[in-house]
Amino acid sequence: MKPVRNFASDNNASIHPQVLEAIAAANHGHTVGYGDDAYTESAVRKFEQHFGSDIGVFFVFNGTAANCLSLKSLTSSYHAVICSEAAHIYTDECGAPEKFTGCKLIPIPAPDGKLTVESVKHAYHGIGDQHHVQPRVVSITQSTEMGTVYKPTEIKSLAKFAHDRDMFLHMDGARIANAAASLGLNLRQATRDLGVDVLSFGGTKNGLMGAEAVVFFDKKLGEDFRFLRKQGMQLASKMRFTSVQFEALLSDDLWLRNSQHANRMAKLLEKELKEIPNVRIVYKVDANGVFAQIPRKAIAKLQKKYFFYVWNEEESVVRWMCSFDTTEEDVKQFTSLVEETVTT
Amino acid sequence: MKPVRNFASDNNASIHPQVLEAIAAANHGHTVGYGDDAYTESAVRKFEQHFGSDIGVFFVFNGTAANCLSLKSLTSSYHAVICSEAAHIYTDECGAPEKFTGCKLIPIPAPDGKLTVESVKHAYHGIGDQHHVQPRVVSITQSTEMGTVYKPTEIKSLAKFAHDRDMFLHMDGARIANAAASLGLNLRQATRDLGVDVLSFGGTKNGLMGAEAVVFFDKKLGEDFRFLRKQGMQLASKMRFTSVQFEALLSDDLWLRNSQHANRMAKLLEKELKEIPNVRIVYKVDANGVFAQIPRKAIAKLQKKYFFYVWNEEESVVRWMCSFDTTEEDVKQFTSLVEETVTT
Amino acid sequence: MKPVRNFASDNNASIHPQVLEAIAAANHGHTVGYGDDAYTESAVRKFEQHFGSDIGVFFVFNGTAANCLSLKSLTSSYHAVICSEAAHIYTDECGAPEKFTGCKLIPIPAPDGKLTVESVKHAYHGIGDQHHVQPRVVSITQSTEMGTVYKPTEIKSLAKFAHDRDMFLHMDGARIANAAASLGLNLRQATRDLGVDVLSFGGTKNGLMGAEAVVFFDKKLGEDFRFLRKQGMQLASKMRFTSVQFEALLSDDLWLRNSQHANRMAKLLEKELKEIPNVRIVYKVDANGVFAQIPRKAIAKLQKKYFFYVWNEEESVVRWMCSFDTTEEDVKQFTSLVEETVTT
Amino acid sequence: MKPVRNFASDNNASIHPQVLEAIAAANHGHTVGYGDDAYTESAVRKFEQHFGSDIGVFFVFNGTAANCLSLKSLTSSYHAVICSEAAHIYTDECGAPEKFTGCKLIPIPAPDGKLTVESVKHAYHGIGDQHHVQPRVVSITQSTEMGTVYKPTEIKSLAKFAHDRDMFLHMDGARIANAAASLGLNLRQATRDLGVDVLSFGGTKNGLMGAEAVVFFDKKLGEDFRFLRKQGMQLASKMRFTSVQFEALLSDDLWLRNSQHANRMAKLLEKELKEIPNVRIVYKVDANGVFAQIPRKAIAKLQKKYFFYVWNEEESVVRWMCSFDTTEEDVKQFTSLVEETVTT
Repeated sequence: MKPVRNFASDNNASIHPQVLEAIAAANHGHTVGYGDDAYTESAVRKFEQHFGSDIGVFFVFNGTAANCLSLKSLTSSYHAVICSEAAHIYTDECGAPEKFTGCKLIPIPAPDGKLTVESVKHAYHGIGDQHHVQPRVVSITQSTEMGTVYKPTEIKSLAKFAHDRDMFLHMDGARIANAAASLGLNLRQATRDLGVDVLSFGGTKNGLMGAEAVVFFDKKLGEDFRFLRKQGMQLASKMRFTSVQFEALLSDDLWLRNSQHANRMAKLLEKELKEIPNVRIVYKVDANGVFAQIPRKAIAKLQKKYFFYVWNEEESVVRWMCSFDTTEEDVKQFTSLVEETVTT
Repeated sequence: MKPVRNFASDNNASIHPQVLEAIAAANHGHTVGYGDDAYTESAVRKFEQHFGSDIGVFFVFNGTAANCLSLKSLTSSYHAVICSEAAHIYTDECGAPEKFTGCKLIPIPAPDGKLTVESVKHAYHGIGDQHHVQPRVVSITQSTEMGTVYKPTEIKSLAKFAHDRDMFLHMDGARIANAAASLGLNLRQATRDLGVDVLSFGGTKNGLMGAEAVVFFDKKLGEDFRFLRKQGMQLASKMRFTSVQFEALLSDDLWLRNSQHANRMAKLLEKELKEIPNVRIVYKVDANGVFAQIPRKAIAKLQKKYFFYVWNEEESVVRWMCSFDTTEEDVKQFTSLVEETVTT
Repeated sequence: MKPVRNFASDNNASIHPQVLEAIAAANHGHTVGYGDDAYTESAVRKFEQHFGSDIGVFFVFNGTAANCLSLKSLTSSYHAVICSEAAHIYTDECGAPEKFTGCKLIPIPAPDGKLTVESVKHAYHGIGDQHHVQPRVVSITQSTEMGTVYKPTEIKSLAKFAHDRDMFLHMDGARIANAAASLGLNLRQATRDLGVDVLSFGGTKNGLMGAEAVVFFDKKLGEDFRFLRKQGMQLASKMRFTSVQFEALLSDDLWLRNSQHANRMAKLLEKELKEIPNVRIVYKVDANGVFAQIPRKAIAKLQKKYFFYVWNEEESVVRWMCSFDTTEEDVKQFTSLVEETVTT
Repeated sequence: MKPVRNFASDNNASIHPQVLEAIAAANHGHTVGYGDDAYTESAVRKFEQHFGSDIGVFFVFNGTAANCLSLKSLTSSYHAVICSEAAHIYTDECGAPEKFTGCKLIPIPAPDGKLTVESVKHAYHGIGDQHHVQPRVVSITQSTEMGTVYKPTEIKSLAKFAHDRDMFLHMDGARIANAAASLGLNLRQATRDLGVDVLSFGGTKNGLMGAEAVVFFDKKLGEDFRFLRKQGMQLASKMRFTSVQFEALLSDDLWLRNSQHANRMAKLLEKELKEIPNVRIVYKVDANGVFAQIPRKAIAKLQKKYFFYVWNEEESVVRWMCSFDTTEEDVKQFTSLVEETVTT
């Protein structure tokens, strides 16, 4: 029998009940489409409560879009985006950023998923040389694809580096809630206050049915974004059902409760795994992901019961994610199976 | 007091209760993301029941995407798409088709929204001439932007014209359900059997929360579509909640009941309007839209109570749409106000 | 025996001897590539002598590129370019503008090839509406594709219309020399002084081997153009051989002598044709092109001896162009044949 | 006093006299534009003499275009191109390939500029996975950016690797003549016979004024290329002057004489440099480029007299290129200065 919940990805999770309730509550009568409605206005106000005023907030369907449209709004086609070579935008979006922006993405080695000023410097060259793409954006993922979390000072340094060079700092915040929870910061402290210019604010992995937001901390940067969103095929007609999802997430600390829980489950998972011989935790468990090196032959065995992704085939490293609905029992049940599998 | 429902657009409507129930019913446990799940498999099987086997079915977020990705899958950048000058893809998608495909759209005058072989012929020239874009797709909207409906023979003729010239026939079926209901045909008879190659199958305007499908009637044409969908920023991670919407729509004739109802309400609206002096019905009411010429000064007055769109400013023509949740009382209440407004 | 010169197009002409001499004269030793050389500096200075200071001047390979790169430098992908439906950029560049800029081109009927403020107004709508592309550029062709020439006041009006709406005026000046000569204006008077923002300055049709320039009358607009040029595949490595062509063209009034001569030959051609029965001049002969309606059966007969283009198949209108190397004898010889053909 | 010729790049060289003569010889009378002329037909026949029949040959303006258009003709936007991280297409074309094709370029470390089957294998993954771009082309540069030359067997292996996986092998042959000369092979043996599918055939660096060709060894692959060329802004109107350049280059072994001479001068340069203390030749001198590590402070001193490019700032490596017009005396004069500079 398959388990009810797995550890494949936080997007394998369900919709948080409060979010689904919000959708149901909005489901009566007619509402003007495309975002010119009271639900959307209210949801945007929620963002302002969390991030402060003078921001631009735009809802889109998924993370690919939040990232691609963010980058497009900051660039011309001859610009370049500097990112980690493990960045989702570089490896997992089927070339969507290149296709939509025309820009080159410059991949930087980042063993723990984090860019550093030192590493970014190497990609910052050819400035003013017509043969070279011109670096315009530094894009970081918080929490990172490896489950690590940038420290505030690390982000501040990257922001300063970028701004000193007329560049922007973009944050792929598909899991920004997990990062903020991990750092003990509120959403604004974890983003705007550190110098982030544009944020892909993740909702789907934190309990929504499917919705992400692009947040401009300088409203002017997002002035024409509504056209890019429509042209980017990301304008929902029945927008109210997207907006109420964010309203729910940003009310009563749901965003925080969900992400704290997921992080806590990851810590528990790490703790349990550490006691198992032949299992080695590969990256620091800062947020809701655990990366473990396990015996090669154990992978297929485990996958018969639990669907999950191999992170690095050659090094036999796997990725296990926790989500808002992961239970302690899920973790215990899973780690028991891991123990059984790797020790037999 | 504002009315509960208006006549602005069928996408101002809510989610049909059965659709929302389907979402709620799927909301438990974990499900693998991105469409490799049983819900999606089942929904695709539903499409096969309606349209026949050997088809390719792909879910996307909205109609803009269904159209743009359909066209991209059929074209290279030097191709052209022939469409009505009132086509949604030409006028209302902020240039998304041009941006995503690189193609030129060739607009054809079409007073009632329908292309004819005769009118398409004029745009079919420059074949083989390297200075000219090469026509590759004829795109029709069914039901049309004017609320009219192509007859089967009209579509067959366009399909023949296209196929004889190594072109494809694409159907923007944002309201294909209304058209099929109007024609008394099932979904297959209204599309595949008439020679349509690729269909943008509309769900949102017919009671879904927000979902459209691209349907290839030659499976091979859609072979690589999954890459275009991801690159086109249209791959939902929690796909199950999209799939169950279609499952509900295609079960128990919900698609037909919804569209028949909307069409019936439009007929009622037309009937009531016809009795009002100073109101002229402009296009044939074949589906769920009514276009009326009304006294110019009445427009603003009416819009104070009911939000709706002016179709043609210069000729004082407005558009009123009915949807699955429009009630007879809604129509009566509205037409009373219209009468009152235009006669005072 | 085929005639030495035909009337098909001014780009069927040869290289003016002074231009070829300039190339030969520059052909010694090594010169740094990509435009950082003394030849290019000098050619740019020539442009400044003609057009005034504070301009940006960039050489590209052909007219398609001059137009597409000009437009790209003025737009984002959600913008629109308003142009005549007979505009070269709309009809004859295989969709290059759409592909390179992502923008929609909005075609305006223009019986004599000229846009008017009145006609442009119709295409200027949907401003601020996210569903609509946003008009950003009005593009005119001078002299037009029909051989007519905008009057200075007509251009001034269009410039004012554009500038009042935060739009730019682009001029496709593939034959700007012919227009300036026709108007008795110098190059600056015929462009910058009328409010043109960016000019595609044509060289090829006026005696060069193959070279066009993009001229920004506000230097800032062209600040990043060098990157667009490289990314647009238009940066010549052996740039000196492009630059010296312009140096020659802009020295000793060669541009003017060439275009005056071509215009004069067109006038002669018109005069001769007018005396032939069954030949009707269709457009005003302002520059170097003559459009004539001739008996349908005469076309193929004439084409056996002279290659030329049919302008309008349905109306039996043909296009005959004169160039810097057309001789009076060429005209006489050709019109004799026309007379002979249409009268037998 | 500046030297007449430098060692900065083979594109700093002049036009070979025979090429300029060919241009002058074609400069009389009118010729139909855009390639439908006898000069072009004859030049294409020359290519067939060298490369065999059943090929597609298309002339473009420069190397950027030859590469970008070649790649576009082989790909859809969700494909990927595997290349060396030093590949010109990756580093020096201001993102033109990404912009024009939409594809991601996957850079592979290649210390001597050459891809190997082993290194390409690492980039070949994610096949069929919708999140990943799909590798479609392996692009190699011959001779490489480092002046090395692939051996025939190395190319054959890469071709086999590509073809076994439904991929194409593209060759950036900006200096294919130098490579063929170096290998003692004729043009066909150095390209088509090794499994190359599409070749960017370089002319500009081998004595032309400015012209490159795209050569398809399977004619069908190039069937629609004429549309891509026009849309890619690469169709010359006065094509005859491009065609006759190739006619000259491919006649009387001019291509071979030019490249052999350049290679010989590079060998001489290498020999002279080797005798200078503090100068270290960094890559194998297979073709016409010499890469040398020299004392850091010598670079600026030398550049006062001779313009050239620093290849690797951090390692103090410079690049010196020889061309068809480099003389033995040029080499002697230059190496004397190098010796003087590095030893004082």
